[in-house]
Order: sequence, then C-alpha cells, then structure tokens
Amino acid sequence: MKIALAQLNYHIGNFEHNLQKIKEAIAKAKSQQADIVVFAELAISGYPPRDFLEFDDFINQCWKTILEIVPETDNIGVIVGVPTKNSEFEGKDLYNSAVFIADQKIKSVHHKALLPNYDIFDEYRYFEPSGQFLIDEYKGKKIAITICEDLWNLGNHPLYKITPMDELAKQNPDVILNIAASPFHYDQSKERKQILLENVKKYKLPLFYVNHVGAQTELLFDGGSLVINSKGEIVEELDYFEEDFRVYDLAYVESFEDKGKEQNLSKIELIHDGLVMGVRNYFKKLGFFKAILGLSGGIDSAVTAVIAARALGAENVRGILLPSEFSSDHSVIDARELAENLGCPYDIVPIRDSYESIRESLKTQFEGTLFDLTEENIQARIRGVMLMALSNKFGYILLNTSNKSEAAVGYGTLYGDMNGGLSVLGDVYKMEVFELARLINKEEEVIPVNTIVKPPSAELRPEQKDSDSLPDYDILDEILYQYIEKRKGPKDLIEMGFEEMLVKRILKLVNTNEYKRYQTPPVLRVSPKAFGMGRRMPIVARYLS
Amino acid sequence: MKIALAQLNYHIGNFEHNLQKIKEAIAKAKSQQADIVVFAELAISGYPPRDFLEFDDFINQCWKTILEIVPETDNIGVIVGVPTKNSEFEGKDLYNSAVFIADQKIKSVHHKALLPNYDIFDEYRYFEPSGQFLIDEYKGKKIAITICEDLWNLGNHPLYKITPMDELAKQNPDVILNIAASPFHYDQSKERKQILLENVKKYKLPLFYVNHVGAQTELLFDGGSLVINSKGEIVEELDYFEEDFRVYDLAYVESFEDKGKEQNLSKIELIHDGLVMGVRNYFKKLGFFKAILGLSGGIDSAVTAVIAARALGAENVRGILLPSEFSSDHSVIDARELAENLGCPYDIVPIRDSYESIRESLKTQFEGTLFDLTEENIQARIRGVMLMALSNKFGYILLNTSNKSEAAVGYGTLYGDMNGGLSVLGDVYKMEVFELARLINKEEEVIPVNTIVKPPSAELRPEQKDSDSLPDYDILDEILYQYIEKRKGPKDLIEMGFEEMLVKRILKLVNTNEYKRYQTPPVLRVSPKAFGMGRRMPIVARYLS
Repeated sequence: MKIALAQLNYHIGNFEHNLQKIKEAIAKAKSQQADIVVFAELAISGYPPRDFLEFDDFINQCWKTILEIVPETDNIGVIVGVPTKNSEFEGKDLYNSAVFIADQKIKSVHHKALLPNYDIFDEYRYFEPSGQFLIDEYKGKKIAITICEDLWNLGNHPLYKITPMDELAKQNPDVILNIAASPFHYDQSKERKQILLENVKKYKLPLFYVNHVGAQTELLFDGGSLVINSKGEIVEELDYFEEDFRVYDLAYVESFEDKGKEQNLSKIELIHDGLVMGVRNYFKKLGFFKAILGLSGGIDSAVTAVIAARALGAENVRGILLPSEFSSDHSVIDARELAENLGCPYDIVPIRDSYESIRESLKTQFEGTLFDLTEENIQARIRGVMLMALSNKFGYILLNTSNKSEAAVGYGTLYGDMNGGLSVLGDVYKMEVFELARLINKEEEVIPVNTIVKPPSAELRPEQKDSDSLPDYDILDEILYQYIEKRKGPKDLIEMGFEEMLVKRILKLVNTNEYKRYQTPPVLRVSPKAFGMGRRMPIVARYLS
Repeated sequence: MKIALAQLNYHIGNFEHNLQKIKEAIAKAKSQQADIVVFAELAISGYPPRDFLEFDDFINQCWKTILEIVPETDNIGVIVGVPTKNSEFEGKDLYNSAVFIADQKIKSVHHKALLPNYDIFDEYRYFEPSGQFLIDEYKGKKIAITICEDLWNLGNHPLYKITPMDELAKQNPDVILNIAASPFHYDQSKERKQILLENVKKYKLPLFYVNHVGAQTELLFDGGSLVINSKGEIVEELDYFEEDFRVYDLAYVESFEDKGKEQNLSKIELIHDGLVMGVRNYFKKLGFFKAILGLSGGIDSAVTAVIAARALGAENVRGILLPSEFSSDHSVIDARELAENLGCPYDIVPIRDSYESIRESLKTQFEGTLFDLTEENIQARIRGVMLMALSNKFGYILLNTSNKSEAAVGYGTLYGDMNGGLSVLGDVYKMEVFELARLINKEEEVIPVNTIVKPPSAELRPEQKDSDSLPDYDILDEILYQYIEKRKGPKDLIEMGFEEMLVKRILKLVNTNEYKRYQTPPVLRVSPKAFGMGRRMPIVARYLS
C-alpha cells in the first residue's frame, strides 16, 4: 500500500483556495500511484476557524467542499479533516472529524475524542468529543484514523479519561494515521516526535502523521509531518515551514532500518524561520505585500527589518527613521546603514516640529508641570501617527517591533511604538533578539555591529538607557520566563535565588500592564506561552500587583 | 431554618478584600440568627480568574483564604465557591467547587459538573467536571448544593449528558442552593428566572440562588439573586447592580403566596445601570477615580460623558473639545453645553496646528497625493495624542466613546478615536445609543437636543455625514444584530428582505475589520454577544470577505 502525505498551507474560510490545493494533491497522489492521500485536521476550513464554527453557513460550506472532493476519489482513498454536524439531540453541535472518501463515496466519518482546551486551544468550545472508535479497512489494510490530540494521552498524569488508541488497538489495525493541526513553538517538534514515538512503542504499529504548514495570524504551523515504522525508526520528517508532499510504500517503510531524514534546526534557527514564514503568510493571506516600520537604530527594529526583508523582499520593506531631539547621531547612522545593507528604501522624518506643536497646543493645560513620561510618550505617539499616515496613504502594513521582555513589563507606549498590524518579536525575549541578530550576522554584517553592542535605549529623554528602569536583560528575561512560561510564583522565584524586591517588582509590572497588552497587535507565537490567545488574564485584578 | 444570601462585589485575586467582605457578611448573618449564609461561585478568587488559575501560588492563596473562614463558622454554616485541586491522577488539575463549612470544620466539598465553555466562558480550560452528587444534611434539612450551570441543562437540546439535579433529586433534598457567577446581558435576568423556575417546577423544591454583583473589566454582574418557593412563587429578587444581603426563613418562604418583590427595569434601563456600574467598578478596582474623554458634540461622546459622570461624579470627568478645521461651530457649542449641563470641567484644545505640522513633516512623502482617509485619520490620531498626553500627565483614564455599530464595520481610527482604557458603548448599537440619550433626557435636557437630532458625522472632511459611507443606522443595526448576535448567514439575511449587495458589503466590513477590533479596549458587555472575549474570530481569513 502506498500512502501519500500532503502537508499544505490552508487559508481559514477560503474554501475555494483550500479545495484547489487538495484537488491538486489528489491528482499528484494518483499520478504517483498512491492508494491513499492524507490531509491535515480541519484542512477544509483551515485551522483554527474559531467562532466561524458557530455559523451554520460556514459549516454548510465545509460540507459542500467535501462533496466537491468526492468525485475526485476514483481509484484513490482520501482522508481529510472537516467540522461536521452532531445529529444527536444532546451535546455540542459539531464534531471535529476525519472523513474517509474512496471510490467516489464517503466511506466513514471519524470524530476526534480528545479535544484540547488549553493554551491557544478552544476545541471544547465547539466540538462534542467522540465516544466511538472504529477501524477502516481499505485495500486489505486495517487503518486506525486518529486526530491530533487523540494520540496525546500518554504519561503519568493523563488529561483525559479515554485513550482512543487503546480502543482502536483492540481491533488489530495495521497502521496508525494521525491528522493534526499542531501549532509550532520552539520545543514543539521535539515533544511531538517524542509522543509519536511513544505511541509507536506502545502499539507497535507504523505511524503516518500529517500536520499543517503556514501561518494563521499569530499561530505558526511548522509542518514536520512524520513517518515512523513499527520498530520506532523515524523514516522521514517532512520539511519545516514549507509545503511538502511525499508518497511512501508501507512495505518499504516497515523494512526501513537506516537513520531516516530528520530536520535539524537549533532553537534560534526555528524561531528565525518561523518568524519569516509568519510575516510572509500574514501579508499574503491578507492580500498585502509591502511593510513599513520605524528604524530606531536599535536591535529590535533591526531584527524585525531583516525578517521582513527575508519574508517580503527588501524592496517591499520601507524603513522610516524618526529622530527626535533626544536621538543620538549614531542612531540615525546605524539605522541608515542597516537599510543600506538590506537594500530597503528608507526615509528620514524628524518629529521635533510636531512634538513642539503638540506641546504648544497643551501649554495652558501643562503649565507648571515638569518633563516626565508624558513627554516621552508624546514622541513615541507622534512616530505612531507618522508611520500610520504613510501606511494609510500607500497601503503598507505597519510592523510592530516590540520584544517580549518589553511587552511583559509594559516598557512601551500604547498607541506609539506598540502600534502595528503584526508584532514580529512580541514572543521573543530581548536576549533571544540578540541571538537572532548574531544568527543573522553569521555570514556577513547585515545588522551594524554598533546596533548590537550599544546599550539598549528608548532615547526619549537625554542619556536614557533601558537599564535606568529595568534590571539587566539576562536577569529580567529569566524571571519573566519562570513566571510566564513556567507559571512560578514569587516564593519559587525567591527560592531560585532571585532577589525578593526585584521579583515582586517584576511580577507586579507584568500583571499591572495587562491593559497594555490587551490592545497590542497579534504576536507571532514561537514559545510555549505567548501573549495573546494562549494567555488570558483579567485586567481588573489585584494579584501580585 | 434561616438562610442568608450574600450578594457581594468581589475583586479578582484580591484575597484580603474578598475575605474581609465574606467575614463581615458572616458576622451580619450571625447577628440575624441565620443558620446558613450562602456566597457566590468562586467568591474567594473573584470571577473569572482566568489564567491565574494556572498558577499554583494563586490556588494555594485561595485555599488559605478558606482556612481563614473556618474559625468564623461557630454556630453557622457557610457555603462559598472556590477553586480546589483535583487529587486524581487523571483529568484537569482543578475543580470549580462549593465548600460547606460549619461548626468550624469543612463539612463537604462539592464540584461543579457542568462547565460552560461558550461565549465568554472558558471553564473547561481549567476545571475537571464532577461526576459525584451528594446531599448535605444540616440542622435537620437535606440540602442540594449546585453551582451555576449545573441547573442549566433543561430543554430539548441539552448541552450536557448529565443533569446534576436529576442525581441529587434521588436523595430527596429539602432545598436547592445554587451559587452562581452569571454575567449580565440585557436578556439574562429573564432567561435566568425562567430556567430557575423550570427547575423548581421539575423538582418541586424551594430554590435559593446567589449571584455575583459588580464588574470585572468587561463582564458585568447584575446580582438579582433569587428566592423561589416550591410552588414556583418568586418570593424575592435581590437588587440589581448593588450589593445586597437578605435573610429568609425557609418556612416563611414555603408558605409565601403573594406576588414577591421583583426588579422591573426595561432593556434600556438595564443597559444604562449596567454601564454606570461597569465604569464605576473599572476605576475603583484599578485604583483610579478620574476620567477624561473627547467631547465631539456628537451623541456617542455625550452619552459616554453622562454615564461617566453618574459613575464617578461630574467633577471627576474632564471633557476635552478638540476642534479641527472641519468641525462645525455647533459641535463646539453642543459639547460645551453638555459639559455645562453636567457640571464637568472641560478644555478646548484645537488640533489644527499639530495637523499642519504633521502634514508639513510628511510633505516630501505625500507630494502629489490627494486628501483621503489618511488625512482624516491624522486628525483622529492627533486627538488621541492630546487625550493620552493629558491622561498620562494628570492620571486620568481615557474613556473610549465608539459604539457597537462603528466597531462592527470599522468606522473608526485605530490609535485615534478607538483609543481608551475602557469602551463604554462598544456593545451598544447606534440606535440603542439614541435610546440611552432619550432615557437620560427623560426628566430634563442633560444632552443638548441638537446633539440628538443632528445627522451623525465624524467631521473629518468638509460636509461629511456618516450616511455618506454607511446605510441608515436602523438598517445597519438590524443586519449587524442578525449577523453578530444571531449568527445568520448571507442567505438568511437576504431571505429576511435585506438587499443582497448591502448584506454582502456589511458582512465583509465586519469580517475584514477584525484586525481593528483586536486592538480596541475592553468593551463593557451588555448584549448576549459582545466584541471581546466572547467573540473569537481569526484575523487572517477569507470568509464573506
């Protein structure tokens, strides 16, 4: 039996686009004599469709798309994910299903049993869990079809009370298929391989795993679909961050004994490649192709510009230098050098006059007050006005350049430098931004060395440095990581050796700045706990604050 | 048996504050010879605690608070909601529990079985559903303790496969207690009474229902706790939007045959009172007391100002008039008249010079282009800069004045008039804003009549009217309501008689403006489907767009 894996980049709600891709892959699979072609979880709708699932019209369109696939399945089996209606009188309205189509008929519909509802997942919001576990027979092989989380209930502290493969294994299948929508973070591919290998080890069956690839707003899908034989050898791992299509002969897979092809990227390479794909897909799927961003001469905007240039082409990334009276000469020099290295168009738009004009207009109200955060914020907000004006006039999407450390402690101006259609580095801590810069400069100096080595500064008042208001980034980032990613409390952190006053100050900053993060752009997710849909916090609360 | 209902305003994560309130209510209940005092669902943590529930330290603080209540329970029973740890090896880490404390001992812990996970609810994200149903005996009475949604599984299309009261009823209880956290919307109190009455009818038992009151960011809790006797008479409905505390003799309740006291507010009065409470609580719980807002002379900012003045006191609401060259004379006159009617301080800060200065700075880039949306947005954004500058300098929270109709179709400027710490009218359609204005003016002309009767306009270019770009609000609002609240598709809407081109245009506007709403302030929720946590949409999608 020959099994084709189609690792594709779907577009949520774009049924025509998704159908076209699926049809092309079916034709390709046929031309390569595949018996079955496997697509990802909810391939028809794109993942995650979120509350579009509550619209009857949307669900009907999904099923209509399935019906358009049926005629394509002469002499081939197709397995594809789609939401389906629950016809029982009780329970939620939908199932998250895998439809098996062959010989121009719908052979079976399998429903997902384990519905992730943590972090970025909301599947229990829409779907009823399945309690039925049936094997498909096709061309003499017994196939266990599972959907993503269905294979993730191993270990000592299982989240669910049912383990679907335990039920399916009783019916002696020959092979496990798993169709998935497993969003990327920098540790996810490791965890994914481990859990799939554990399944193979437990059930002693070959496993074919098909994932999404591409970005859907903040969520990145790295692909990395997998073929593992029943001996636990990884036969092949498909491409990361690219569409891929492969056909495997099951007998060959089972006889395979070598070391198979695996992807081999470091954490920082994964982040880099994920962000490039994230920016590229965000623009393409929205129908835009040009980005604009402020270039401060600092490392965050520099790394953002490089990623944007790699995603969209340097000629489509316009850098704007917006010096104020507090900007150092080297800021302009560094920013200009970066733009020239990259080959990006750039402009210099000084903000001094507008800043003076705003202050003049508020002279009566501000009389007798001193220069404080207000004046710093005015500068950041005028930059925001300038960038958005250029964005509006010429059809650019503004890229946000804030990093995760700043976003965490609220070191940024709402409606100023926190503006943008997409936050590129909002899930990347400052120390990781430095690593990205070093990776980018590995072969040649793209980012001016001075940008990397100078002390970080917002340059909103004379001689300002980030370290005036924040601890050193290596310490800050570690505290933030332990609090945000690891959900450690103040006691844990103090026991880890961090100073009590500092811990309390940082956690308070994180919690009291929830109101700022509420209004920030979607953040490309690269870590196991990103700001955004996967981290839901009250604004009006008083805990560690 | 005397049962006390404590309808209180908790603060999420503020354990000291919540404990203090609970202790005071226990003392009051004792002084009135109550046998039991009942508090709301998750009273200890406040509702909804959201992802704070993932922090071990947070859960430990919850339990520590319970232990501080135990010594207070000499000679009284206390029923109170709190998250507790699940000690089973499988399943989620927590339960949503009701603890019954009496005689200075924890008598029993009951877990919620039905976990709402739709709209604004995420309970399945955190909690394992209970499968155990046990009755408490106390002072000779058998008590069925249920938690909110546990009573909501009646009807022909039940969401859950278990109905907890069916299980509890088998043990012949004498009374049902229900502790709840049931967020307000304008139809919720009606639905709530109906479902509770259906329970009484089915189980033929008296029912005591205790809800939260107060606002937690966007969620409003109206209170409206209820006492219903086994004959289905509503004995009393507690206050709306205010804390309340009452003690009932069960024998008296059961013998009650009159028409009991019910709250009686119209939809628009409910919205008005809810918004006033929402603004008041947002400020108080964040430790602020002064609001600022832009007064355009239009109806949205006028209604927002009145609500703010009623919530915070007129002296704490500062109106800023920000005329541009396109502002009509009557705008300034109307806005000033409103401020004077209310007794709010106000300032006039013209934006013309700053607008010219921004345009001058971008002269090179804009050369040869025509006045378009860009220039309109620049004006709105300069107003945003001015308002935020005053907010930063003097410690005001900026109130956002956008209504739901605008927010739906993206008729507003991101980082301009869409700014603010809180959106007061973001869940109120334009036609409802008019109704609010008429309610406000019922006794005397608070809002200048001219503000109500003149055609709505953004005044960002000469002679502009909302009706240049949008259909009349009565039609627009109805299409939006059917699409947003009722999840109707284009076919349904066309069948309802709306013009096809208009329907497609409006739905496309709603869907393509998701990116704007992603960055807007939290919206006080008054409808069954508000923008924000209860409506989760992809940005990068192509469905009806």
